[in-house]
Amino acid sequence: MNEDLVDRLRLVRSPGIGPVTFRQLVRRFGSAAAALEAVPDLARRGGGKPPRLCERAEAEREIAGVEKLGARYLTLGQGLYPRLLGELEDAPPLLIATGNLNLLDRMAVAIVGARNASAAACRFARGLAHDLGQLDLVVVSGLARGIDSAAHDGAIESGTVGVIAGGIDIFYPPENEQRQRAMFERGLVLAEMPPGTEPRARHFPYRNRIIAGMSAGTVVVEAAPRSGSLITARLAAEAGREVMAVPGSPLDPRAQGCNQLIRDGATLVQSASDVIEELRPMEARVRSAPGSYRAEPELVNGDENVLGLIEELLGPSPVPVDEIIRLSGASSGAVQMALLELDLAGRLDRHAGGKVSLRAA
Amino acid sequence: MNEDLVDRLRLVRSPGIGPVTFRQLVRRFGSAAAALEAVPDLARRGGGKPPRLCERAEAEREIAGVEKLGARYLTLGQGLYPRLLGELEDAPPLLIATGNLNLLDRMAVAIVGARNASAAACRFARGLAHDLGQLDLVVVSGLARGIDSAAHDGAIESGTVGVIAGGIDIFYPPENEQRQRAMFERGLVLAEMPPGTEPRARHFPYRNRIIAGMSAGTVVVEAAPRSGSLITARLAAEAGREVMAVPGSPLDPRAQGCNQLIRDGATLVQSASDVIEELRPMEARVRSAPGSYRAEPELVNGDENVLGLIEELLGPSPVPVDEIIRLSGASSGAVQMALLELDLAGRLDRHAGGKVSLRAA
Repeated sequence: MNEDLVDRLRLVRSPGIGPVTFRQLVRRFGSAAAALEAVPDLARRGGGKPPRLCERAEAEREIAGVEKLGARYLTLGQGLYPRLLGELEDAPPLLIATGNLNLLDRMAVAIVGARNASAAACRFARGLAHDLGQLDLVVVSGLARGIDSAAHDGAIESGTVGVIAGGIDIFYPPENEQRQRAMFERGLVLAEMPPGTEPRARHFPYRNRIIAGMSAGTVVVEAAPRSGSLITARLAAEAGREVMAVPGSPLDPRAQGCNQLIRDGATLVQSASDVIEELRPMEARVRSAPGSYRAEPELVNGDENVLGLIEELLGPSPVPVDEIIRLSGASSGAVQMALLELDLAGRLDRHAGGKVSLRAA
Repeated sequence: MNEDLVDRLRLVRSPGIGPVTFRQLVRRFGSAAAALEAVPDLARRGGGKPPRLCERAEAEREIAGVEKLGARYLTLGQGLYPRLLGELEDAPPLLIATGNLNLLDRMAVAIVGARNASAAACRFARGLAHDLGQLDLVVVSGLARGIDSAAHDGAIESGTVGVIAGGIDIFYPPENEQRQRAMFERGLVLAEMPPGTEPRARHFPYRNRIIAGMSAGTVVVEAAPRSGSLITARLAAEAGREVMAVPGSPLDPRAQGCNQLIRDGATLVQSASDVIEELRPMEARVRSAPGSYRAEPELVNGDENVLGLIEELLGPSPVPVDEIIRLSGASSGAVQMALLELDLAGRLDRHAGGKVSLRAA
């Protein structure tokens, strides 16, 4: 058994250790094994009880189950892990994958949209996915009803990746079982959650960050205001990826989300050539060596004084970590370490956009 | 009879004296009367035969006819002449107007689009025009079929201006006679051509520059690629006005022109509030004193050497006047004067974007 994988999985599956915390722990302590050992002490320094760490046996059971399903793990920063996804601060430390892993070598574009999209929009999404496939792009989507399904269908011959919110062995919605099984064979399916996980509402935004994060750009085809597709578009923009949208008549309420995205700066696309024109400048970045893009501060050993200061600066309202660093006058590494300690002590909440707050006692 | 109007009209109606030439002549010689006297000599200096000047009697006949129609002239740089239109280098020296001249005091927005627009797009244009009227904007369009007619209809209560390609007394298309007559009464109709002129294809781009030029912004509702509406949008952009477009599904060929405009930088609009948001910054400019916005070089007396040099620099390919000035090393005023002489001699062609070329002999 791959011992490093067991340790990483234990860390990932420990309650209270999210992707950001995972990344910082492994960077600071050099390995998942060392991080697991350090966690109890860090949590105590942060003024809380150590988190319940995932047991070794539990992790081994999951690994055996994944193997039995014919799936495998992709490890952040290693081998086949999607390169662009690794750029996210909160990139999933591990992904479970079934299918054709060669698809991860090509530039990917996400096509997302409404589950209750119009027939015309679904037809458009299928055609767009097909045409993008002909241009050697891999089409990523979420295996949901409507636009997602149409996008996968259009690109099934050329290559498509479905990212699901639940476990790799769960078919949701149920009518997509055949589609998901076809993608096990001819495409690729990725899941962050352990096998057997039924998708819940809170899982979908995590799924969406993977769709946006592994893609050079995201195309929204038909989306209502305040829909999940718009969240995916926002996550893509935050990750520095291209955001594109397909317009529609203002008389069609289903076009409002996309039209608003375009007003807010998304590129209007009408065809695959519009998309490729937008993505071409990303190609060099997709091909660049992993790890070459993210400069992170080296975490430094905890300092009681910094920890106390950070506690005073934090409150229940989320504030950017950068602001905490500035206000504290301490080094970035020292502040990050103090935050890590508070986090492991269960006293910190991490929010979108690199913000943190103190958790109500 | 208004002698200055007679002189201006004689100059305007003389073949070979376009709006740019008119403007330069009147600036250089102080009045239309003085310009009329100077033209023969200038043309001879430019190396050509003097143009046939419009006879006084002919001008007087037109003025009497306009009065009989209950119409009146608007003079560039004077009184009620549309302020923003006066900013154009090739602003019409005279316009013929019938209707409610008070409409020229309010900020105007153009709504243009396809003659064969869809019923849905016409309904949208009518609603948009109505809503913009409620926001105190005057709606300008071209009294054509389709979108133009819908826009006028939507704003007939609040205030709308129709700019026509032919004479003020010509109804084109014929089925718009009732609409045009209603606008004589309750709106305003403007024409650059003399009464009795049947509109020809070449008149429409001139009409479009007036629509775009008198409006703070232009909204294109549904337009085919390479249509007149897109020319209006380009003219609006060149005049530094806001260009807005209403999107549509890529599956609808009639939406392609607007979608392309948005890709090229036009603002996507879905409602009157989107339009007003875009136009609010223009309000100060609309209200500014006339003449305060355009700094023109004072033309200086002709100089044989400059004229010879300019002739050598010019060829059959259009080049920007600014480039001629730079290459000649002469003053801007001297170059403009030499160009004016060549122009009046029938040896110069003026093109869009301030370019000029030597006319083939």
